[in-house]
Amino acid sequence: MTTHAVSLALLCAVAACQNAPRAATDVDPLPSWNDNASKRSIVAFVGRVTKRGDADYVPPAERIAVFDNDGTLWVEQPMYTQLAFALDRVKTLAPSHPVWTTRQPFKAVLEGDKAAIAATGERGVHELVMATHANMTTDEFAKVATDWLATARHPRFRRPYTTLVYQPMLELLAYLRAQGFTTYVVSGGGVEFLRPWTERVYGIPPRQVIGSRIALRYRSDAKAPALDRLPKADFIDDGPGKPVAIEQMIGVRPILAFGNSDGDFEMLEWTTAGRGRRLGLILHHTDDVREFAYDRDTHFGLLSRALDEAAARRWVVVDMKRDWRTVFPP
Amino acid sequence: MTTHAVSLALLCAVAACQNAPRAATDVDPLPSWNDNASKRSIVAFVGRVTKRGDADYVPPAERIAVFDNDGTLWVEQPMYTQLAFALDRVKTLAPSHPVWTTRQPFKAVLEGDKAAIAATGERGVHELVMATHANMTTDEFAKVATDWLATARHPRFRRPYTTLVYQPMLELLAYLRAQGFTTYVVSGGGVEFLRPWTERVYGIPPRQVIGSRIALRYRSDAKAPALDRLPKADFIDDGPGKPVAIEQMIGVRPILAFGNSDGDFEMLEWTTAGRGRRLGLILHHTDDVREFAYDRDTHFGLLSRALDEAAARRWVVVDMKRDWRTVFPP
Repeated sequence: MTTHAVSLALLCAVAACQNAPRAATDVDPLPSWNDNASKRSIVAFVGRVTKRGDADYVPPAERIAVFDNDGTLWVEQPMYTQLAFALDRVKTLAPSHPVWTTRQPFKAVLEGDKAAIAATGERGVHELVMATHANMTTDEFAKVATDWLATARHPRFRRPYTTLVYQPMLELLAYLRAQGFTTYVVSGGGVEFLRPWTERVYGIPPRQVIGSRIALRYRSDAKAPALDRLPKADFIDDGPGKPVAIEQMIGVRPILAFGNSDGDFEMLEWTTAGRGRRLGLILHHTDDVREFAYDRDTHFGLLSRALDEAAARRWVVVDMKRDWRTVFPP
Repeated sequence: MTTHAVSLALLCAVAACQNAPRAATDVDPLPSWNDNASKRSIVAFVGRVTKRGDADYVPPAERIAVFDNDGTLWVEQPMYTQLAFALDRVKTLAPSHPVWTTRQPFKAVLEGDKAAIAATGERGVHELVMATHANMTTDEFAKVATDWLATARHPRFRRPYTTLVYQPMLELLAYLRAQGFTTYVVSGGGVEFLRPWTERVYGIPPRQVIGSRIALRYRSDAKAPALDRLPKADFIDDGPGKPVAIEQMIGVRPILAFGNSDGDFEMLEWTTAGRGRRLGLILHHTDDVREFAYDRDTHFGLLSRALDEAAARRWVVVDMKRDWRTVFPP
């Protein structure tokens, strides 16, 4: 034994290294969460539903956890990432569509006139999305979306969007999976905009990503059949659409739901009204230094009714500024 | 060592017990399949895609296998089980609907007049399905379907429908899962008619069951929110709908597809046209002694175009009479 080894052995005796194996499992799975009530609620819930013999025990097959995406897993300000993609895409495609220079909402996008874009309302946004997301195959769209995400940068943070995911949420996803949960994204965003990267970034495979859908049509061809994306919405996965999609795609009611806006209200309600122990969580964006602060007055991620009713419904409101030690991955 | 133990040791030496661990993995995973070309195609395919370093190797996350249900995993003659459920359900509900005794297609059902039911055509069947599958919550429907399956008996075999599943297919599902595949049901039948029992019978959990869907509407209520089944089709998972549903629900193209009718044609085409090694299989019902014999002339499970094109597309046609040692579980 070298002197160094002896020193280590002594240190170990003092620091209870003999308990190392046990200590290893005691490593904090949520180091980016401050030790506040929010974190304690999560850990207590997971402890109960995973403890055999406990009245609240839930078998692994039913440990379904659903997460909103925009504003819950990644940044949604100053606008939804997918909208930024659509606006960039209009600029890329403009040379092939000369009429766009004189036609709204395209003219407003090409001139960078945000007020004029907003003035075209939901119908304008719908038109922008269809012009940029449809009339190509599913394979072509996956490539366009992937290429854009590889080069686009967030206007404030100057980083790729897929790095503007929340570190505490990545830890929570990994922690839940380690405890036998199956984690799902249930997003108002388009499912095929998300699937190319959710496995790499969140550890969530394509089949566990639920989102809004554009209509698809199968084109038969023995050698190269294709799925064409039609310029028509097939399903909007928002508000009351979320529990509907959860039933259609998963077929089992979740026991944990995490959202950040009124668009997640029904998903939280459906989840937490089930029998047995349930956990509903809302991320409240309160940190304009490290991220953004918004709730009742925003175009993206409006949080009002869900905030008002959170206490009565025993939903945990996670305060970003107070509860998170770090926001983004290093 | 006792005499008995010595004998065992000697026997072991003779019988090469030292190789026991290897011998264990050599147990035939498909004992109900005769050792014909069909079985050899399956085993060869699985061997290639699961062998690291092989040019055809497929990582587990992409080992998606999709199976039609009616006529592929369970009996579909003399009529789809779900239609038998609908007809029985009309009889059960009739006392609360006196008008049915004089109105088609209900009158024909109540009088057991099969020709008259058939004469009402697709519209009649649609009306029967909506009258028996809608206007209740998802929880209520799951109970009604489960209760019926627990007591209903097949008219010829006099056994519960969930026991009229094909033993060779149960073995194939288990074999594929043991080899890292994820197995899906992709059925023209209603997804919520299947989900209550697929895990118990096929080992396939609700989230891996894709099917036709009735429209759902979320009913908000803090204590007991519900999903109401509306009398309207939301999605028909048949023919070109199958690849669409596979993309919407799984988001990854399968590498193995197994069907038995022209309604599976596009699913087989979509699966086998993908890059790399793929396997398409068709179950041909050729055994009217042990099950049924039908293909081009049937109301349920019509198999014509897929049979004509199978050879050119290199789809394996499994001949029930020739290829299966047993049909149903003992």
